[in-house]
Amino acid sequence: MTRQELEQRFEDQWDRMLDEWKALLRFPTVSIDPDRTADCADCAKWLAAKLTTMGFAARLAETVSHPVVLAERRGRPGAPTVLFYGHYDVQPVDPLDLWTTPPFEPTLRQGRLYARGAQDNKGQMFAVLQAIETLVAANQLEAGIKILLEGDEETGAMPILPVLARERAALKADIVLVADTGTISSGAPTLTMGLRGIVHLTALLSGPNRDLHSGVHGGRVPNPADAMARLLASLHDAAGRVAVPGFYDGVALPTPEERALANATPLDPVWFEGATGVPPVGGEQDYTPIERTAFRPAIDVNGMHSGYGGSGSKTIIPAVAQAKISARLVPGQEPDRILDGIAAHLGRLVPRGLKLAITERGIGGPAMRVDVNSPALRLARAALTELSDQPVAFLWEGASVPILSHLPAAVGGAPILVGFGGEADCIHAPNESFSIEQFRRDYLFAGLFLSRLRAGAA
Amino acid sequence: MTRQELEQRFEDQWDRMLDEWKALLRFPTVSIDPDRTADCADCAKWLAAKLTTMGFAARLAETVSHPVVLAERRGRPGAPTVLFYGHYDVQPVDPLDLWTTPPFEPTLRQGRLYARGAQDNKGQMFAVLQAIETLVAANQLEAGIKILLEGDEETGAMPILPVLARERAALKADIVLVADTGTISSGAPTLTMGLRGIVHLTALLSGPNRDLHSGVHGGRVPNPADAMARLLASLHDAAGRVAVPGFYDGVALPTPEERALANATPLDPVWFEGATGVPPVGGEQDYTPIERTAFRPAIDVNGMHSGYGGSGSKTIIPAVAQAKISARLVPGQEPDRILDGIAAHLGRLVPRGLKLAITERGIGGPAMRVDVNSPALRLARAALTELSDQPVAFLWEGASVPILSHLPAAVGGAPILVGFGGEADCIHAPNESFSIEQFRRDYLFAGLFLSRLRAGAA
Repeated sequence: MTRQELEQRFEDQWDRMLDEWKALLRFPTVSIDPDRTADCADCAKWLAAKLTTMGFAARLAETVSHPVVLAERRGRPGAPTVLFYGHYDVQPVDPLDLWTTPPFEPTLRQGRLYARGAQDNKGQMFAVLQAIETLVAANQLEAGIKILLEGDEETGAMPILPVLARERAALKADIVLVADTGTISSGAPTLTMGLRGIVHLTALLSGPNRDLHSGVHGGRVPNPADAMARLLASLHDAAGRVAVPGFYDGVALPTPEERALANATPLDPVWFEGATGVPPVGGEQDYTPIERTAFRPAIDVNGMHSGYGGSGSKTIIPAVAQAKISARLVPGQEPDRILDGIAAHLGRLVPRGLKLAITERGIGGPAMRVDVNSPALRLARAALTELSDQPVAFLWEGASVPILSHLPAAVGGAPILVGFGGEADCIHAPNESFSIEQFRRDYLFAGLFLSRLRAGAA
Repeated sequence: MTRQELEQRFEDQWDRMLDEWKALLRFPTVSIDPDRTADCADCAKWLAAKLTTMGFAARLAETVSHPVVLAERRGRPGAPTVLFYGHYDVQPVDPLDLWTTPPFEPTLRQGRLYARGAQDNKGQMFAVLQAIETLVAANQLEAGIKILLEGDEETGAMPILPVLARERAALKADIVLVADTGTISSGAPTLTMGLRGIVHLTALLSGPNRDLHSGVHGGRVPNPADAMARLLASLHDAAGRVAVPGFYDGVALPTPEERALANATPLDPVWFEGATGVPPVGGEQDYTPIERTAFRPAIDVNGMHSGYGGSGSKTIIPAVAQAKISARLVPGQEPDRILDGIAAHLGRLVPRGLKLAITERGIGGPAMRVDVNSPALRLARAALTELSDQPVAFLWEGASVPILSHLPAAVGGAPILVGFGGEADCIHAPNESFSIEQFRRDYLFAGLFLSRLRAGAA
């Protein structure tokens, strides 16, 4: 379909789409709240019914938590299959008193629809579903479409993973489409090109059988706080590089094209310092600040706790020191190997008399990277280019979305991460909203992109 | 007086002494508890009245907290003057339910008197006062005696310092006697030969205007927790020596005699590890574990706090990191200079983008050292030798008692620190006690020592 045809359909259908979007937002699907279990199940049923009316074979897959909505519509032979992933669960709403209108009574004000989930992810997801409905009704959809909507994205627990394993054959796809990201701050259309993986561990250094008197023993007893500081300091060299042996093994350098695309919108250091309080001067100095989070792995101490922290002094040698350490991974880094490497490195530096225990190990997932040169990505870029006066931005995210590390690998498809979110949407905060214009761009993009996935095109 | 005469007097007077000791212990002089202010004042009045009946000119000196008891009895011309220091305040009594008998109802069981303060310091102090009473009554005291009993030793606030300055002339003495220490674990009579001084500071490293997302920013933002670990690690070199420039400047090495006396009772590493949980393997390897706390200064991290410390992970770059650092000082180290040196050293290592603030500076006091060769010490050693089959132990304490750093300097006297406390006394804990035998040795020592301070003797 052409852009003009899609714009016309959007205008014709808007009143109905808004009603249905509001209906979807009225389900209080706070996944972390046990009192909302029935609401999550009702929402999943509503979505399955909606997909059925759109011509999909829809069903619910049970998990240990909320159900997953699965739906499928066969494509024309030879046309690619797209798996569209979204989530119908939302973040909690506290502090409730900061909401101008109730979070589950969607309210339109000055071109924006206010409700919890208006953007993340019900809004971004529903615009895509509406585009699919339009293409189906107009008989303009050759691609096979599989739909996977979960109810546990916001909890981080990933009860969907057994579903991915169980439904491996049913979920197989050529492309994995997700509309759960945002645009760069200028509002230019944005393709998210990668996410870093994440592992974390908790290290506990112990020895003294209680806090010891630092006068009686200071200078002859190994101090767990001193020693933990040495362990943590050893994670980086003086130049800001990670100093854990083997950490960078297998890390692929970005291609010149990837570097150019990532740096196309440089980080303004003045704006950055205003926004965060610090200049972007940490880490590896031979990469730009954008490259450091886009293409390079990192280790950060997320917390360290030992001994006395109140006012005045308490002159003790602390019995224990604890540190929380996480690593952000890039392609080529295997999570288990990285965790083992950090633990072994710390272990080698434990001074005589103290004991190190790794009390928690967590693997969020490996990194995910989008191929700059895949046909699907070129189609997505072309669709975005057609919809905007601004050039398309390419964003390699430093953050991690564990499910998006697992999903493309599980279904075998090329990921396409596109999204129209912005700072003004206040996701995860009071007064979340999504503008009609953002919803419309999301719809138009999905309509253009999906209608062009024809037999032999991707 | 001879030992035999003193033993006879002790036996004759014991019933009366026990009654008075119990009366003293019945005052609930918990100095930190505002509800005990009147009890502290009553106890000070009781002590002043007792000293008056003993032939002293006694008075109370007000402080911002509890009163100080001052008393004086002139000596024979040419005889030395001794200032005896003690404290009548006690530690809190919680947990109260662990006491076998109430803490302020002194109870005799199997040769020990149980009560809060039974040892620390009412018991150790009152035995000395009883010896003085005996010597005065027998007309066997040539030395001038000044008495200074405070009610704020356990709070650490030292409201006595203005009294020391104000009463400088009245407190002038040749010898400062304190009975507030203990014996080594074998129970051998012990002279405490030194205390380390102490300074402390709180360092705060900041930069990010809030906890930042470690995925979005990890690898390009300077992390206050990482940086604080580097600062703290820099306090020592890999061999365990303090690495702050100038820290050891002016530190006098112990004389061969001091080293020999200190090491006469070596630290049993097996016993030590059983008692503390760690072997005495920290710090400067070219000194024995005893020498490291006796003669060498030390720096310890007493606490470090930054970021997340709960279970699981919270992937943040913490906005701030705080550390509590203290140094134990030996003679030759000026507290202000040491504090400045540590702060300057930390300041030089702050990475670009972060700010260091020293938010608290505390000076407990400089080190205090007893002269091995002073005539007063030789007299004290001889008295202890006469009272025991075991050789006298010489203990250079690693801990700090700030008032004992200030007192000898303020009154100009040579300090003598002797005490008969032991682990079994449970000071600062439930069921504090002091045995009749400990009280008796304290009395006999004070009687022998003070009666021998004659004109021209010290």
